[in-house]
Amino acid sequence: MLKTPSLKYKPHPPVSLKDRQWPNNTLTRSPRWLSTDLRDGNQALAEPMDGARKRKFWDLLVACGFKEIEVAFPSASQTDFDFVRSLIEEKRIPQEVNIQVLTQAREDLITRTFESLRGVHQATIHLYNATAPLFRDIVFRQTRDEIVQLAVNAARQIRQLCDESPESVWTFQYSPETFCFTEPEFALQICEAVADVWEPNGSRPMIINLPATVEVSMPNVYADQIEYFCRHFSRRQQVCISVHPHNDRGTGIACAELALLAGAERVEGCLFGNGERTGNADLVTLALNLYTQGISPGLDFSQMKKVVEVVEECNQLPVAPRHPYAGELVFTAFSGSHQDAIKKGFAARQNAPDTFWQMPYLPLDPADIGCSYEAVIRVNSQSGKSGAAWLLEQNHNLILPRQLQQDFSLRVQQEAERGEKEMSQMAVWTLFRQSYGLVDAPALRLEDYVCNNHADQRTTLSAGIICRGKRLSLQGEGNGFLSAALTALCREAKAELEIVSYQEHTLGKRSDSRSVAYVCCQDRAGKCAWGVSIDSDVSRASLQAMLNAAAGFITG
Amino acid sequence: MLKTPSLKYKPHPPVSLKDRQWPNNTLTRSPRWLSTDLRDGNQALAEPMDGARKRKFWDLLVACGFKEIEVAFPSASQTDFDFVRSLIEEKRIPQEVNIQVLTQAREDLITRTFESLRGVHQATIHLYNATAPLFRDIVFRQTRDEIVQLAVNAARQIRQLCDESPESVWTFQYSPETFCFTEPEFALQICEAVADVWEPNGSRPMIINLPATVEVSMPNVYADQIEYFCRHFSRRQQVCISVHPHNDRGTGIACAELALLAGAERVEGCLFGNGERTGNADLVTLALNLYTQGISPGLDFSQMKKVVEVVEECNQLPVAPRHPYAGELVFTAFSGSHQDAIKKGFAARQNAPDTFWQMPYLPLDPADIGCSYEAVIRVNSQSGKSGAAWLLEQNHNLILPRQLQQDFSLRVQQEAERGEKEMSQMAVWTLFRQSYGLVDAPALRLEDYVCNNHADQRTTLSAGIICRGKRLSLQGEGNGFLSAALTALCREAKAELEIVSYQEHTLGKRSDSRSVAYVCCQDRAGKCAWGVSIDSDVSRASLQAMLNAAAGFITG
Repeated sequence: MLKTPSLKYKPHPPVSLKDRQWPNNTLTRSPRWLSTDLRDGNQALAEPMDGARKRKFWDLLVACGFKEIEVAFPSASQTDFDFVRSLIEEKRIPQEVNIQVLTQAREDLITRTFESLRGVHQATIHLYNATAPLFRDIVFRQTRDEIVQLAVNAARQIRQLCDESPESVWTFQYSPETFCFTEPEFALQICEAVADVWEPNGSRPMIINLPATVEVSMPNVYADQIEYFCRHFSRRQQVCISVHPHNDRGTGIACAELALLAGAERVEGCLFGNGERTGNADLVTLALNLYTQGISPGLDFSQMKKVVEVVEECNQLPVAPRHPYAGELVFTAFSGSHQDAIKKGFAARQNAPDTFWQMPYLPLDPADIGCSYEAVIRVNSQSGKSGAAWLLEQNHNLILPRQLQQDFSLRVQQEAERGEKEMSQMAVWTLFRQSYGLVDAPALRLEDYVCNNHADQRTTLSAGIICRGKRLSLQGEGNGFLSAALTALCREAKAELEIVSYQEHTLGKRSDSRSVAYVCCQDRAGKCAWGVSIDSDVSRASLQAMLNAAAGFITG
Repeated sequence: MLKTPSLKYKPHPPVSLKDRQWPNNTLTRSPRWLSTDLRDGNQALAEPMDGARKRKFWDLLVACGFKEIEVAFPSASQTDFDFVRSLIEEKRIPQEVNIQVLTQAREDLITRTFESLRGVHQATIHLYNATAPLFRDIVFRQTRDEIVQLAVNAARQIRQLCDESPESVWTFQYSPETFCFTEPEFALQICEAVADVWEPNGSRPMIINLPATVEVSMPNVYADQIEYFCRHFSRRQQVCISVHPHNDRGTGIACAELALLAGAERVEGCLFGNGERTGNADLVTLALNLYTQGISPGLDFSQMKKVVEVVEECNQLPVAPRHPYAGELVFTAFSGSHQDAIKKGFAARQNAPDTFWQMPYLPLDPADIGCSYEAVIRVNSQSGKSGAAWLLEQNHNLILPRQLQQDFSLRVQQEAERGEKEMSQMAVWTLFRQSYGLVDAPALRLEDYVCNNHADQRTTLSAGIICRGKRLSLQGEGNGFLSAALTALCREAKAELEIVSYQEHTLGKRSDSRSVAYVCCQDRAGKCAWGVSIDSDVSRASLQAMLNAAAGFITG
């Protein structure tokens, strides 16, 4: 493979457009969207949809707010024909929705196409024929003139059939196939000829669709082609320029976006990029790309999980885990530094919830597409202190002291490396409880205590604790409750410990009156250990947390 | 979701570059590639790779021809550290391969990073720190000057450690993170400051990597940023400009390609676009995009299935069915018109195999990445006559007459619509055999015949056939063998039939001496029926084919 491409492959020639304008433009509004899931998407499935699946997909598209939907190639299959009839006869098409059907440039097929549409309120007839030299020469063996004549004849027939059914509102759409490797001047010529037949105006709308049915060039080349066409087409003001990019080079989204800069006003595509081979441009990504630029796409993907579910069921194809906006991993940060940044970003946003969305590593707020923040941080051996701390905060309302975060993150990393896998939220919580004494029978368990705070600020404490099944009675004195308890414990255990950190906070939810205490003890060698306890009695929580911290030195 | 984006989201400001040059450029050579599968890709896996999986992936990358491989973040995890050590100590790094390791700008981490590299032949130290305002303000709360100082101090330490180990060849790489939403002049400033420390030259190579760690703008904006940087960076000639695009907007490939037009010389990414969230730019797609432009990418993906297999095993993530070049559906055409065009394209190519590759709907020859043509055409209810005909030709060497293709395609479509699913190659073959008499016991089965061709050109024929278990003796005369048989049959069955089409050809393979005959009979009402037969005796094949065609009229 390494040697031959320069002999076997050559690039398609770009259009010459040195004074291009599109790179200076920015998007300011949404294009018109056409979903071709039920046609281009459907024809590319190993098992095309039956009527019921098509209906389900149709309902989804309508619910998402699509106003233009290509529903079928009615002359090509009975299923498709019947589906169009059922939409019309069962009155399933909302007033504002325009259905579109595809037809080849053949008289019998066009006649059959119109039969399928009888009684429709409004519809777009989408005519295409092959214009690219590869197709003219190899597939159809026709001259340019013959190709133009074919399109013109079909357009005449379509205009006549439309004129004969004035009770329906007709839009005419023409696609030179494949536009992106048709000679630019020939694409213009045939579109001019077809438009001369249709004579587009306000009451006879026309769409010129310029497909990249096979993506063969870089997206800037496609944009040049679109701008060239828009600048040279004589009836530019009377037609809507539409694009239909595929994704063979993995740049279908970019082709659509740059084409919009170059003058296109409408995009055809499929949800999550279904379609022949590598698929069509993905309308979900395009719409949400606009959304995060502050432009309303006019489509509703606020329930993304539902959308994914229906599309996967109808197409019998998975949405990839890293698919923009919709994949299960796209809001997830595993790496420690990412998690740390996200945690700080959310903290900052709590103080300023109404500002522009600015969140490290999250260009879209998951909540805007109906996702929770649960998936945002997941913990494995690549995660740092913030990941586990985030989970404990999100799920258990614990706000860990910074040093405890570090202490715990080391334990998490060791555990994750030992297990060679991701740690679930439950596994993180279990490890936390085991590490810091949040268990039913901690090594040193507080049973009861009496605390006496004297007028001279001294505090005396009597406490009963259970250690290895035995009850110990502690008696101590100090300048505070905790120090009195530690003094007593150290005397009993012949240890020398001091408390170097103590924090306590309520668990935050109104319904929960408990508090959590974090205590760090240090021995004379400088070794530290943390203990944590949760209790509805704030004193009891702090005392048990201290016992948990001390237990490592005393019972270990 | 429909109302708020203009209030909640705003676009990042583009760089002002009215005199941009990149849209006038075309790609003429391959960039340098860096695979970061073992680092950026790995850190984004729910279950990061253990040493064995990392080794397997490493072997794959070397076999594909990668010369620069980011292997680890050695100071961040013991697994990563150990992996670097094992590559060096077990001498697994080919002479021409440069390994790269990532480090944050912290003294202890840099020290540890160098420890992991002791004894390496050549390596790239990849330093990054946060430069974007979002990170400066929310995550690190540092001023621009503090951020610059952090990078400069780290660069000094790295230069010193490199100078102390002159037995290794060192490259220094710096990434301002995240470049794509750092103020352009600040990105320049910090890169200048870091380069002033490193003082890049021929023997002290330096890479400036400009990541879009989160993709937040359209690809043309990224290209503008890259061109702006390249035109303003004072040591432009002494450094290699690298890009590292992610794919949050689905335009990571486009960002990389347009950045190359804008002056970048190196791309960092992962196979099939693994990486945090939506992943990194996919190096497989980028490389093969170049390939089909006639440019050798210097990477070998001629055994794509193997590559997919190893990557899926190591990442535990699937390569999507429509993933460019690599997905299982990307060479498959289901639609009739696509299949027809491809069939004609292959026929044309047989006559001119050494010309440039030009194939409808197949921008890449599947054979170039080790794929067969089997997947190219699959048959369902959306398929036309060419699809089934292609399968019969590819698998059974049958070259069907055009009218027989049409006849059979109707049967295929009915069958596919009835089954609501794709028809396997075997199902197509079974349907063909049942439809045209290619079965063990056809309705009219030829047992034996005697043919006598007289001097006056008349042919007399005696044949014994089995019909519903009974032997019939046919005696007929005509101006040829087949017409004599048909005359006899019609007299016996009191039918009026004529032969309207007859074709026969050998089965093509040298090892197979059989021929296949196709016969079409028509009755007086104009109804047609086809029969097919395969036999090592050409006469017997044609006679049985005629009987199979006639059977529909006579026994039906």
